Amino acid sequence: MRRIRASVRQCSQRPNRHNGSLGFCWLVAIALVFSAAGVASAVTPPTLSEDEMAKAEFIYFDRCSGCHGALRKGATGPNITDEAMLKKSLSELETTIFEGTDAGMPGWGRTGELTVKESALMAKFMQLPAPIPPEMGLKAMKETHKLIVPVEDRPTKPQHKRNIDNYFGIILRDVGKGAIIDGDTKELINVLDTGHAVHIFRASATGRYFYTIGRDGKVNLIDLYEKTPKVVAEARVCLDARSVDVSKYNGPKGDFVDKYAVVGCYWPPQMVVLDGQTLEPLKVISTRSSTYDTNEYHPEPRVATIVASHHAPEWVVAIKETGMVWLVDYSDLNNLSMTQIATERFLHDGGFDATGRYLLIAANMRDQMVVVDTVERKFVTKFETGTKPHPGRGANWIDPEYGPVSATTHLGEGMIVVYGSDPKGHPEHAWKIVHEEETAGPGLFLKTHPKSEHIWTDSTLSKEEGVNQQICVFKKADFSAGANCWKAADHGKVVHFEFNKEGDEVWTAVWDKQGEIIIYDDKTLKEKKRIKGDWLVTPTGKWNVYNTVNDVY
Amino acid sequence: MRRIRASVRQCSQRPNRHNGSLGFCWLVAIALVFSAAGVASAVTPPTLSEDEMAKAEFIYFDRCSGCHGALRKGATGPNITDEAMLKKSLSELETTIFEGTDAGMPGWGRTGELTVKESALMAKFMQLPAPIPPEMGLKAMKETHKLIVPVEDRPTKPQHKRNIDNYFGIILRDVGKGAIIDGDTKELINVLDTGHAVHIFRASATGRYFYTIGRDGKVNLIDLYEKTPKVVAEARVCLDARSVDVSKYNGPKGDFVDKYAVVGCYWPPQMVVLDGQTLEPLKVISTRSSTYDTNEYHPEPRVATIVASHHAPEWVVAIKETGMVWLVDYSDLNNLSMTQIATERFLHDGGFDATGRYLLIAANMRDQMVVVDTVERKFVTKFETGTKPHPGRGANWIDPEYGPVSATTHLGEGMIVVYGSDPKGHPEHAWKIVHEEETAGPGLFLKTHPKSEHIWTDSTLSKEEGVNQQICVFKKADFSAGANCWKAADHGKVVHFEFNKEGDEVWTAVWDKQGEIIIYDDKTLKEKKRIKGDWLVTPTGKWNVYNTVNDVY
Repeated sequence: MRRIRASVRQCSQRPNRHNGSLGFCWLVAIALVFSAAGVASAVTPPTLSEDEMAKAEFIYFDRCSGCHGALRKGATGPNITDEAMLKKSLSELETTIFEGTDAGMPGWGRTGELTVKESALMAKFMQLPAPIPPEMGLKAMKETHKLIVPVEDRPTKPQHKRNIDNYFGIILRDVGKGAIIDGDTKELINVLDTGHAVHIFRASATGRYFYTIGRDGKVNLIDLYEKTPKVVAEARVCLDARSVDVSKYNGPKGDFVDKYAVVGCYWPPQMVVLDGQTLEPLKVISTRSSTYDTNEYHPEPRVATIVASHHAPEWVVAIKETGMVWLVDYSDLNNLSMTQIATERFLHDGGFDATGRYLLIAANMRDQMVVVDTVERKFVTKFETGTKPHPGRGANWIDPEYGPVSATTHLGEGMIVVYGSDPKGHPEHAWKIVHEEETAGPGLFLKTHPKSEHIWTDSTLSKEEGVNQQICVFKKADFSAGANCWKAADHGKVVHFEFNKEGDEVWTAVWDKQGEIIIYDDKTLKEKKRIKGDWLVTPTGKWNVYNTVNDVY
Repeated sequence: MRRIRASVRQCSQRPNRHNGSLGFCWLVAIALVFSAAGVASAVTPPTLSEDEMAKAEFIYFDRCSGCHGALRKGATGPNITDEAMLKKSLSELETTIFEGTDAGMPGWGRTGELTVKESALMAKFMQLPAPIPPEMGLKAMKETHKLIVPVEDRPTKPQHKRNIDNYFGIILRDVGKGAIIDGDTKELINVLDTGHAVHIFRASATGRYFYTIGRDGKVNLIDLYEKTPKVVAEARVCLDARSVDVSKYNGPKGDFVDKYAVVGCYWPPQMVVLDGQTLEPLKVISTRSSTYDTNEYHPEPRVATIVASHHAPEWVVAIKETGMVWLVDYSDLNNLSMTQIATERFLHDGGFDATGRYLLIAANMRDQMVVVDTVERKFVTKFETGTKPHPGRGANWIDPEYGPVSATTHLGEGMIVVYGSDPKGHPEHAWKIVHEEETAGPGLFLKTHPKSEHIWTDSTLSKEEGVNQQICVFKKADFSAGANCWKAADHGKVVHFEFNKEGDEVWTAVWDKQGEIIIYDDKTLKEKKRIKGDWLVTPTGKWNVYNTVNDVY
């Protein structure tokens, strides 16, 4: 790229006395693009058969693209385009893929996900140009749309006596399914087909429906009014996706409760608005745009996360690679307003503060948390926490000394960082770190509940034997006392927490092929129940309907 | 594309019981992209030497890309990608390039712009894949930025006794220059170096500066306070551009008068905000996005035109290929709000109605005029006029029968179409055609002025000998009486009109290498003066400072 930019500079510095001067310069720039693409050819790239290529592309999609991007230009993981990879030997690459790195790359061979042969295949694939996946527009999406139960054929009230507010949706990652469990009775109600490796469940604004979004961009609508919850609509609107949400606003600008759903895509880089009741795809909003800081065009700005505002008819959308937060107003799709807020690159996951006003989101590769004011519609601040903050939705509580605080755990180190999040009542602590405590190891999630006395953290990413099976719990009343930790399982990895509606139980998952759900009493920290079953394959995230509807965390 | 979409459909319809099924499908889609790209190879494409390629690329940029797009996917002209062009013989292509078509393609050989040899070269170029021009980000732009006279070194008041409000800026297209003429005395004041083939002059909100934008994306800032107007800053922010404007708003949201300039690019597809006083590039806003109707991603949505709102801190930006009008709020660039209004594809040129509330813009390849309400921030309507409407900024006057009306001429036929544009006072005629009259032939521009009794039209695009040298003038008081036409020159093409500040004189250009400016008395239609000179090479558009500042047309 440096060469291309240089040539542009050269162009503008030439005296422009003749028609031809621009053309010449423009063409020099073009020629450099092509020659840059040709640089790699000094080293002979490997060859793959069609079958090998197909297999490598799937493994790349399934295991690698989340961090490195479809175009391999890097994000959470580094740039691994063929140009960069041809500078390394195949055996170096094989080792990295199989063993992982200290910088945070999983050892896919070590963890049993890839064989030696597959690691060797992926090493070769890395030295070939990244295939560019196709676009996906409205016509293709509509062809995938299935309205399984039309709205008029759905029940008008629950067909059962269960308490929907305390239903849990649970991802069964590797089998492309989701389970619905009754949180009151702990009974499995149903297992449903979903997209591939569902990333999240999101409850609709009324709490009647669950939306699930698969890694493959397939969104499912699950009706919880049915006696046995069932998928009443589905559509595929991306080739790679992570986020889904619903319209929640009801106020002077209209009633949009459950009117629209929205999917955030990784590829193609876009967001898609669907009918909230039928999943009919309605509108595609491209996220291809420029980085917030250098203002360079990025070909693959992925939608990292979406949260629905409670006080305006809009979605808060984090665009990872460009470092922008978009507030997208859904009140008039044909005359669509949005505000694009410059924050920090590599936005990943986040949620609201306790008041629902501030978006608190991790810019994980910049080791920072970012604060956006969704009322004033502007950037507030950003601050360093630790190595790769990863709050999930986050955790909000009232610290006896510092007032309302929020917190994040980290992908890159076993640390929970707590910061003030009440600029009105406690301006002196606002967006400043007030606690830093060790957890058992690098983790994915933390969680609390307004009625809980605790903050729960996992250490799922630890490479130390057994540590990734630990849970560490902090006391709100005495955070500085440090964590109470224990080993919750002797197999798999322990990951992700969710409270029940009452806020007195915590659910977590043992993530492997013989998965388990463990339920703890929040007050005593004692195990209440362990759910097991043939159907409980690779459970990961879990969502309580009431807490998801109301952003309770 | 049909094959790709089909494969996506196939993916989603497969039962998703195994991890592999998605991967397989995704890869099928990818494979089809590559095989689609390979379809053309059944016919052997021609070969070009490096020098030939460079020459062809420049000719393409200079003569073809405006209508067909940098990626050759078509807009005002048809799709001419290599896939399409390999279906025609080289001799067919040569003939089309040299002779033109009845569908509106100029005969570049016939008009003397290209030789037989060059036409043959371009025919071969068309059968090769379109080179993708490089991106251009903020760093490259900043390297082109030259602040020739810092703001503090500029005079605080005019250094002359001339009447700046009646200055005219005149494009000297083929020599990459612009002339400043004193409209009171008709004297040439200065000839200045500009970008290549300047598309427009736009006066700053104060009327102190002229901005010019070159086809090559170079923007120049000309200070009219200087005794001899001079270029005080320049920057190149695109590789291909058409539009420039300034921030005009001064009100409760702040004083933005001459604070920002904005350039609309054809390539890269983006708009760029610059400091209005120094031309320092500040912010890049990509226009890559989806079409308004089919919601398919478009790789090259070009900025067709930009007009500054008088009543809000925003620019009204027409995005050609997607058919969207963006209202871009410049009051906070770091938290940037915009409204994206779905209208009609192939937006081209337009301006405001007489009240400044409605944007009236041509969707020229759809033969329609589009109306956007910049106060309510939404689409109003669209309606057919004739073959390829082309209003320039447009023309607004009061018809004795129909009240306030607006009008457009057409690229594709010699016709002026007049429609009601006063939905408040004359709702029965609003956005309905009230007059259709013949002009001398297909033309580019029409113009009037509130003090004028006439509407002036050119017929620049006529292929009939002499007709493109005619002017036709209609009477506001008796429009249906038809035009009074005459031949204004015996060489070149007569193109574009501008009134003086008083509204009693009309200036037009004779566009060839021995160019002329002809000045008419608007009341008598008699010629007042003919400006000639060695410096007057290929004059085209011309802008009066006062009329441009105040959107008088």
